[in-house]
Amino acid sequence: MRTASENIRTILAENLRSLRRSQNLSQDDLAVKCGLHRTYIGSVERCERNVTLSTLEMLAAALGVSASELISKRETPGKENQQSN
Amino acid sequence: MRTASENIRTILAENLRSLRRSQNLSQDDLAVKCGLHRTYIGSVERCERNVTLSTLEMLAAALGVSASELISKRETPGKENQQSN
Repeated sequence: MRTASENIRTILAENLRSLRRSQNLSQDDLAVKCGLHRTYIGSVERCERNVTLSTLEMLAAALGVSASELISKRETPGKENQQSN
Repeated sequence: MRTASENIRTILAENLRSLRRSQNLSQDDLAVKCGLHRTYIGSVERCERNVTLSTLEMLAAALGVSASELISKRETPGKENQQSN
């Protein structure tokens, strides 16, 4: 009945990677900005983490977006996930 | 340096309570829909929980909104948000 949050983890992972890269930040750079460990950033980007609100908030603050934006599906006209709503 | 996520917890708590009430659900009803414990719902509404993505998703699904909506500040002009339809 309950679904694991794969979908939302994927959205977070994609947004995180995309925002981080668009700001020319390495995982290490972002980790320093957040006060998190580099390997943690990597694990979030691999959809391995069921992050908490406070972590989400730290990531969002470091990237200059809101926490809700970080878990919102972004419209990327480019490639693999055009979901015709 | 790091702030605790009081703000986002507050947003979540307010949205949760507001959506729950607008659907005439008790904490108990919502708990059953989510597969969470009633006291847990209460503690989220009292801003006591640093919930995880998967919990956020369960709450959102039970209330018919997206996880990102649950942590977005809602514009409530009056108070308890009139939801048309």
